[in-house]
Amino acid sequence: MGTAPRRSSVSPSRAQSRRSLSVRAAKTENGPTIAIAGVTGAVGQEFLRVITERKFPYSNIKMLASARSAGRQYEFEGETYTVEELTEDSFKGVDIALFSAGGSISKKYAAVASAAGATVVDNSSAFRMTEGVPLVIPEVNPEAMAGYRAGGGGIIANPNCSTIIALVAVAPLHRLAGVKRMVVSTYQAASGAGQAAMEELELQTREVLDGKPVTQNIFPFQYAFNVFSHNSPMTDNGYNEEEMKMVKETHKILGTSDIRVTATCIRVPVMRAHAESINLEFERDISEEEALRALAAAPGIQVADDRAANWFPTPLSVSHLDDVFVGRVRRDYSRDDARGLNLWVCGDQVKKGAALNAIQIAELLL
Amino acid sequence: MGTAPRRSSVSPSRAQSRRSLSVRAAKTENGPTIAIAGVTGAVGQEFLRVITERKFPYSNIKMLASARSAGRQYEFEGETYTVEELTEDSFKGVDIALFSAGGSISKKYAAVASAAGATVVDNSSAFRMTEGVPLVIPEVNPEAMAGYRAGGGGIIANPNCSTIIALVAVAPLHRLAGVKRMVVSTYQAASGAGQAAMEELELQTREVLDGKPVTQNIFPFQYAFNVFSHNSPMTDNGYNEEEMKMVKETHKILGTSDIRVTATCIRVPVMRAHAESINLEFERDISEEEALRALAAAPGIQVADDRAANWFPTPLSVSHLDDVFVGRVRRDYSRDDARGLNLWVCGDQVKKGAALNAIQIAELLL
Repeated sequence: MGTAPRRSSVSPSRAQSRRSLSVRAAKTENGPTIAIAGVTGAVGQEFLRVITERKFPYSNIKMLASARSAGRQYEFEGETYTVEELTEDSFKGVDIALFSAGGSISKKYAAVASAAGATVVDNSSAFRMTEGVPLVIPEVNPEAMAGYRAGGGGIIANPNCSTIIALVAVAPLHRLAGVKRMVVSTYQAASGAGQAAMEELELQTREVLDGKPVTQNIFPFQYAFNVFSHNSPMTDNGYNEEEMKMVKETHKILGTSDIRVTATCIRVPVMRAHAESINLEFERDISEEEALRALAAAPGIQVADDRAANWFPTPLSVSHLDDVFVGRVRRDYSRDDARGLNLWVCGDQVKKGAALNAIQIAELLL
Repeated sequence: MGTAPRRSSVSPSRAQSRRSLSVRAAKTENGPTIAIAGVTGAVGQEFLRVITERKFPYSNIKMLASARSAGRQYEFEGETYTVEELTEDSFKGVDIALFSAGGSISKKYAAVASAAGATVVDNSSAFRMTEGVPLVIPEVNPEAMAGYRAGGGGIIANPNCSTIIALVAVAPLHRLAGVKRMVVSTYQAASGAGQAAMEELELQTREVLDGKPVTQNIFPFQYAFNVFSHNSPMTDNGYNEEEMKMVKETHKILGTSDIRVTATCIRVPVMRAHAESINLEFERDISEEEALRALAAAPGIQVADDRAANWFPTPLSVSHLDDVFVGRVRRDYSRDDARGLNLWVCGDQVKKGAALNAIQIAELLL
């Protein structure tokens, strides 16, 4: 376990220092014009924070949202921006359009933005499985974006949050020993369902502690002090859409449907980071040491696997951090061979699961 | 899915009505004398509730705890009981001794109680793997208790809560089609770590909502709005003791080590019921319909698997209920054959995971 960082690697204090170190204006005359569709949402706001953190260059930002939010003002990097209503005319002169306003808005406006010359990075599920639309995790399959550039038009899809967080960890192991099969159980945060879901979790929790009836607007189950099967629509085979996204998106991103995936997606009362318990079967033997070395060397991953201290990543400890954290890497002794591993993976849903991954895609466009 | 009950089957209102229906004194002159070691704890108190609910017959109850709690008084079924200090002399005339005071107390006093003629039902892990000590889930392997009776001496072990809840659901499927391999990820409640852990979760949650620093006495991680790898000691193979209990106890209870088990045990911020995501591989093909029929016909199980309504059991909905609830029964499409199923299982940790299972064992002694 020589690669295992100590507990400080997943502490909130490090997250804080990281953020404060990187707060510098990213505005530059030569940068692209960016549009953010859905700027008032949890991911829309995170786009702004990530642009600053990564000093993503821009010459102008168009902040777009529904008519209801038009006129709202945001201070960003010392300037005041006024939210405009998203319309068919919003994308003139836009080089990169970041969409996070839900699938129906993407379906309506992404092609409009692309036709106006903007390259769209779409955070919704609208185009993920569309042939010809790259589905990209920059650490995993950047090659899928060959030929795309800022201002060139076209749509690139940001994968589902659970898929991103799983595959950042699984892809280096797949390259090492060939993943044959993944059995995944998720522990998903409120943020995946948006800002209102986070607020519902907080409100319900207060209500339970105060002995009041709970307010349920977003989810069909009480969320406070409870866990429940993911609320996405059920499909004909008994798997919900979230689970089927993990199957189909994994195939598209890793470029093979030979990797078999089965998932159970569960919401847990956590604010903004997902965790996943992943059981992997490989084509060949793979040792814990090999796996840990490959994970430690891979981009976008921090290994946090301190058995001696019984210390591993948690959703809270990785919240607001960029990387996916991997721990509990251990041989699967339910197999006679050495082709099985279990992993515990945590990643910030709003960040790497959404806004950060999209900005990393935008970085590849420049 | 004809066997699937509607959502009312997992509603708290039904739990309430069940409880109130069965509140009747269980005291009877012909009943055994019962001792409860650890009566002040969460499980100790649940023993009392279950005795009333099930009208478990007793002629007298000795309430035992540490010196610190001696003298405390409880009203139970209209009578006042005074807690006595647990000593080597506590078990004279006791027919059934229910232990739930931790492994070290069981190691110290269970043999004493047995020598005094009491039959011990031990809720700790102290004797579970001891040869000759039956490890019993009454719905699964009651035959292991052959020859034991109230007042006959001897020790019977109550399995670990996660194991009980998993195996109540898995055993009927094992009988149907032979389980070869189980991949389990748990979502475990605070109650498994006792009353103080439940209080820590509540206190921390208040503190987080109030913006205060969190108080951590029981767990090494913040529990409020977080999930974390189970805090039981880590063993040499990288699995923690909770995970290894699921492996070893499954073998002992089902009477075969041919069933291969790998587990990832995780705590979630839920008060008193566990959930488990279970992936099963069978010796032969098994259809969803067959599995659902076997589950619906098995004792101690309620099937709650309403795909059309996207309605499945949750820890909250099964809290205070006796049965283990099973939903999300579906074929594992990561396999080419029909030998794989996924299940979602929820059960009350304090009740079926501990006190109820022990009282059911005691019922078999009479």
